[in-house]
Amino acid sequence: MGRYELEYPQDATNLVKRHGERGIYALEKIHSLINSSQLIHVSFNVPNSPFPVTLPMIGQMGSFDRPSADTSDPLDLYIHGYVSSRLFNLGRAAGEEGMPVSCAVSHVDGLILALSAFNHSYNYRSALLFGHATLVEDLEEKMYAMELITNSVVPDRWKNSRLPPTNAEMQSTSILKVKIASGSAKFRQGGVSDDKHDLENEDVLNTVWTGVVPIYSTMGEPIPGPHNRVNLPSYAKEYFENFTTEKKKQSLDAANKTTE
Amino acid sequence: MGRYELEYPQDATNLVKRHGERGIYALEKIHSLINSSQLIHVSFNVPNSPFPVTLPMIGQMGSFDRPSADTSDPLDLYIHGYVSSRLFNLGRAAGEEGMPVSCAVSHVDGLILALSAFNHSYNYRSALLFGHATLVEDLEEKMYAMELITNSVVPDRWKNSRLPPTNAEMQSTSILKVKIASGSAKFRQGGVSDDKHDLENEDVLNTVWTGVVPIYSTMGEPIPGPHNRVNLPSYAKEYFENFTTEKKKQSLDAANKTTE
Repeated sequence: MGRYELEYPQDATNLVKRHGERGIYALEKIHSLINSSQLIHVSFNVPNSPFPVTLPMIGQMGSFDRPSADTSDPLDLYIHGYVSSRLFNLGRAAGEEGMPVSCAVSHVDGLILALSAFNHSYNYRSALLFGHATLVEDLEEKMYAMELITNSVVPDRWKNSRLPPTNAEMQSTSILKVKIASGSAKFRQGGVSDDKHDLENEDVLNTVWTGVVPIYSTMGEPIPGPHNRVNLPSYAKEYFENFTTEKKKQSLDAANKTTE
Repeated sequence: MGRYELEYPQDATNLVKRHGERGIYALEKIHSLINSSQLIHVSFNVPNSPFPVTLPMIGQMGSFDRPSADTSDPLDLYIHGYVSSRLFNLGRAAGEEGMPVSCAVSHVDGLILALSAFNHSYNYRSALLFGHATLVEDLEEKMYAMELITNSVVPDRWKNSRLPPTNAEMQSTSILKVKIASGSAKFRQGGVSDDKHDLENEDVLNTVWTGVVPIYSTMGEPIPGPHNRVNLPSYAKEYFENFTTEKKKQSLDAANKTTE
């Protein structure tokens, strides 16, 4: 990490308008959130429809030109999945550098139960990136992205699966590269925030339970497939065991932050 | 439930194109998934930007005109949250019945670890609704929606919180009503699906672990707030305890389905 923390510049596109004090523009926070999300909601417009289309996709941020870059650096978002190439051609025909897409992730870290229904909330972390998507055609870059994305499912999984990819696999797999134009994140952390008039109401204080209920993602006991012959290897075992511990810690840390 | 299961008609907007066999159009399945999601990603277009905007919002499906309707019936989506009223006016000015929005939810139920990286996948359930959003102005309908949404955080929470709402609360709260135009869902359930040539490769079979790793959302021990005076009431206690059990069961059921 450098001497200062890089941020996406705030403009009309990425500015967090509601609860602006919760807005986050630091690349590291935004990229880390995207990279720890199992699914990314990718939205884009299609011809002759007023509705954006939103698809859940698997993706990961990285830099093919500078693989040693970390989450605090400018990165591209590589997405695995199929979006009709007709759409990409339309994007190009329109004179864009690619198809305009928005990429959203959100995590709920806890329920906030307040005295008034209107002060109920969630602890959450959400991020939104805007960019232009193109199909990755370069074979080396496609391979880089496939490894990056596979290792986001389980670290080190790529080199511990069957390699090399077959020609058929490479041809049937689409990778989208999103060049990021802008982005922001929004976090809500802390405890209950009640209005003064409710905190002075004895009847209410004596009847309504208030507090935070932590929520986190958990990995259960791995279920070997019918053709599996090997014991769970350590790279996977450690990741699965630490996963729940880390997610739980995150939700408790959020609950215990000083309320905004 | 009637004699047949209502479905959203398949058309160019909602058709599940990739892995069409995973497409689901039944109202009950789609509405249940939306109603069990803590956050909904709502996407819409804004003037002078090629990028859809996506906001994480809290919402619930219901019917103000027919409150006894269940998830298998035609419903509206009520969303709590603030979207600049300028946008809604623009939607109206364009001759629409409201602002065109897309509402997406996704749940990951498990990791699918296959022999080849290219056969890795997730068990997941995702849904996407298209519709037109308007601001709810009618006070009674707004109250109905607030109760619906509050009870989606914790069942029965509305009547167990401080009531009635103050005028200030009602005025500062925005509720969007989305009239649904179309929708679909997509589920992936089951175990590992490997290619025949990998299942015949002894070297690969003897080195690569394959199987499903269940993933589910968990609620931790509730943390009472600093002003809380009451014991956790039974309506909340039961919900919190059952939450994790149900989510775990869902992920295990998905893992144990016959692979597609």
